[in-house]
Amino acid sequence: MAAAAASVVAEAEGEEVTNRQVILKRYVNGCPTVDDMEVVAGAVRLAVPPGSAAVLVKNLYLSCDPYMRTRMTRHSETSNFVPDYVPGKQVLDNCSVCKVVLSGHPDFKPGDLLWGVTGWEEYSLIPNPVFCHRINHQEFPLSYYTGVLGVPGLTAYAGLFEVAKAKKGESVFVSAAAGAVGQIVGQLAKLTGCYVVGSAGSDQKVNLLKTKFGFDDAFNYKKELDLNAALKRCLPHGIDVYFENVGGAMLDAVLRNMRHRGRIAVCGQVSQYNLERPDGVDLFQLVGKHIRMEGFLVSEYAGDYSRFEEEMARYLKEGKVVCVEDVAEGIEAAPAALVGLFAGRNVGKQVVAVARE
Amino acid sequence: MAAAAASVVAEAEGEEVTNRQVILKRYVNGCPTVDDMEVVAGAVRLAVPPGSAAVLVKNLYLSCDPYMRTRMTRHSETSNFVPDYVPGKQVLDNCSVCKVVLSGHPDFKPGDLLWGVTGWEEYSLIPNPVFCHRINHQEFPLSYYTGVLGVPGLTAYAGLFEVAKAKKGESVFVSAAAGAVGQIVGQLAKLTGCYVVGSAGSDQKVNLLKTKFGFDDAFNYKKELDLNAALKRCLPHGIDVYFENVGGAMLDAVLRNMRHRGRIAVCGQVSQYNLERPDGVDLFQLVGKHIRMEGFLVSEYAGDYSRFEEEMARYLKEGKVVCVEDVAEGIEAAPAALVGLFAGRNVGKQVVAVARE
Repeated sequence: MAAAAASVVAEAEGEEVTNRQVILKRYVNGCPTVDDMEVVAGAVRLAVPPGSAAVLVKNLYLSCDPYMRTRMTRHSETSNFVPDYVPGKQVLDNCSVCKVVLSGHPDFKPGDLLWGVTGWEEYSLIPNPVFCHRINHQEFPLSYYTGVLGVPGLTAYAGLFEVAKAKKGESVFVSAAAGAVGQIVGQLAKLTGCYVVGSAGSDQKVNLLKTKFGFDDAFNYKKELDLNAALKRCLPHGIDVYFENVGGAMLDAVLRNMRHRGRIAVCGQVSQYNLERPDGVDLFQLVGKHIRMEGFLVSEYAGDYSRFEEEMARYLKEGKVVCVEDVAEGIEAAPAALVGLFAGRNVGKQVVAVARE
Repeated sequence: MAAAAASVVAEAEGEEVTNRQVILKRYVNGCPTVDDMEVVAGAVRLAVPPGSAAVLVKNLYLSCDPYMRTRMTRHSETSNFVPDYVPGKQVLDNCSVCKVVLSGHPDFKPGDLLWGVTGWEEYSLIPNPVFCHRINHQEFPLSYYTGVLGVPGLTAYAGLFEVAKAKKGESVFVSAAAGAVGQIVGQLAKLTGCYVVGSAGSDQKVNLLKTKFGFDDAFNYKKELDLNAALKRCLPHGIDVYFENVGGAMLDAVLRNMRHRGRIAVCGQVSQYNLERPDGVDLFQLVGKHIRMEGFLVSEYAGDYSRFEEEMARYLKEGKVVCVEDVAEGIEAAPAALVGLFAGRNVGKQVVAVARE
């Protein structure tokens, strides 16, 4: 708190300061590149509109999430669940960890640490901070609130238990298993008494799954000639629950290995976001095995957050859940960090540290 | 009953008679043709093994169902829910209406009218008639037990209410809506108080949907340049329940028009059965709208049959449900009748009348 106060003092109230911001230069086709984004030098006045309930925050940690790719394409319909990023001037936004600099809101005061939706910029003025939450467990690294204690953690929790209804003794398969969501899914499934297998895109990640996250088995999908055979090898009795993060060929292979009355929680389909046309998947498999495939958005489970936060904080304290983060330094590194997700360059949850305090 | 007795008398017990049978000549690639099948002249002895519980039945009505196509491909795995037809000698089988000629089973006697799984042949010897059910409502045409009062009817009932959980006031869309299952789905949904729209492949069928089956709206998908636009025109507020019979481009368009927490009961995907590789479908749509897509097999709802049969018989008696059948005459016509399903030549439930009594 002393450090936080000092930081605010360094910039006089009302002063206009530089505010570096990440904008989308153009709608993206195919795989995004750093050239699709630009870090521009904007400006921000250190003030909140008089009489408003706005807060001005300093962003500390930005979260890089694969779903952001889906916001980089123009959608002719309102089919996407969050608005597109408008190229040219709109600053990208996503969940971040931030610190209150100035507040017109009765619930927040300068120095408060929050997590919620902010811009990809150094400072954000949030007119109505309804999506900002206080950081209750400052005993953990603050960046955890972009991952294990934030949206990815709640996504894992809600998808595994509320959507897929995983139960003790079941076989659970997770794709993109070393990622922000996957690593938590696997550990929660293990704590529930499931047999847990994950796939990832490098031997290093597979090693993490087996040694650090306690998965029963794991494979590097890039080294498998036949995903169907890989699944049969690791899960000879089939899959009860699939936590779907990737889509395409992996989903097709999983469908062939699902058990009767299996459940697929569809969280994301990162292999599909950069394609013009989606890959074909044999959905007729759903029929013969009575498979339920259900998409979900974590926002529907916002009401479960407090319970989740306390449970997860306890697991972290007891060492029952661990997490691995990949932290890029400085807002200039944000575009490359985001793009890296689609090449699988991140090892663990990808964070951008804009400022440490 | 008198006629039935006469028919048995015409063939002396123990006599060997001709038994024309439909066999698969070879595994099918792409769209099946009549040349993929053959009607051969087999023989059957009019007898049941002494001391056995077998029944010998005379087949009256065979049922042509699209799922039979999936049994005409060699499956390297046990992924299909029913065994493949083995080319060369195995007689095709499916649900039929038949009459008992001879019985070693205490529950059945000569002259009894049954429905259940038999071969595509004139006579079938059923060693263990566990999948044979007595025809309780002989006041309707017997062929109804291959359709509205048989498997397609129960499929419609279970899929709409047990899987999709359609409720009063919801919008229901049905593809292949003039078919054996679709026509029943639409009528049951109307009886439930839903707004019901169907698609079919000819103007004649669309007309049937609107005038005979009471759909609120319908369109000929072959005349629509843009299925998405057609759905938006007929269902501007979106779809709560989709009864999926076709897959591919229609499923893709439907996903774009589903409402939040919409449900898709996956019954079949007839547009996909003849393809080498399935069409791509934008499954990421499941995520943003929390769509549940669930396959099912009617066999899981066998326990609901008696309740369904009485309910449906009442609707038929009261004129609240009607059905349209397309009856081909004679077992020689069976291959063409089956193949016709994939060109949409049938208008209504496709039946083959092998014998009238």
